[in-house]
Amino acid sequence: MPDDLLMPGQRIARGVCRLLRSHDFACLDEVVPKPGLRVDVMALGPKGEIWVVECKSCRADFTSDRKWQGYLEWCDRFFWAVPPDFPTEILPLDSGAGLILADDYGGEILGQGAETPLPGARRKAMTLKFARMAALRQQGLRDPGL
Amino acid sequence: MPDDLLMPGQRIARGVCRLLRSHDFACLDEVVPKPGLRVDVMALGPKGEIWVVECKSCRADFTSDRKWQGYLEWCDRFFWAVPPDFPTEILPLDSGAGLILADDYGGEILGQGAETPLPGARRKAMTLKFARMAALRQQGLRDPGL
Repeated sequence: MPDDLLMPGQRIARGVCRLLRSHDFACLDEVVPKPGLRVDVMALGPKGEIWVVECKSCRADFTSDRKWQGYLEWCDRFFWAVPPDFPTEILPLDSGAGLILADDYGGEILGQGAETPLPGARRKAMTLKFARMAALRQQGLRDPGL
Repeated sequence: MPDDLLMPGQRIARGVCRLLRSHDFACLDEVVPKPGLRVDVMALGPKGEIWVVECKSCRADFTSDRKWQGYLEWCDRFFWAVPPDFPTEILPLDSGAGLILADDYGGEILGQGAETPLPGARRKAMTLKFARMAALRQQGLRDPGL
């Protein structure tokens, strides 16, 4: 998608996805683990690890998010992704979250945060949901007749 | 992809993917379960069912395939997909395979064949592989900078 059609958070998400791909994680953006909860990026690692990344373009973008604590139970690791000029001191990193610095084109993992492995049943269900969502999206992109 | 850039088998695969989507299965084409083995279509159902579909455009396309028996151990159900004018009597349907009639735009399931559930560990590994492949492909389609 052309850059100018993307919102700032979406451009950061693209950079995050490129970064995570270089770490051998396959990414989907805007994933809905359960109704009413949408995460910016969900990434699936080679051993089935599930990471969630929330992208915040600026202070106001972060302070308006009242749902982020709900994301923690849907992943093994949770990260904030912010641009280099973001005031990182306002992020609740002591909650175990990791930190990614990202721009439109890439990024860097500054901190991994804590790992809190998902229960097996939830990992299984989330992996299946991720798989089906990814396949349906790529079918939608490939097949113009749909 | 424009129709005229697709091979006959690929056009049938597209019709199969549209059909299976209408049955709530998410599809990927050209999936490699293990090195040296490539299936035309792999589909993932709402309960995690894994189906494999081999698309044969004509008699010669079928008779030149010496690998199809290797596909059975990678799915819960296996189907042949052929165009309406295909000589279906040459297909080994007594092996438990299902049958799909398909063209470039859709199709119909004529027989479900037998269900032979995958062992749990293989289903888990295959679902993860499917998920990561689908996500990487959709990322490749969406992000022109990759």
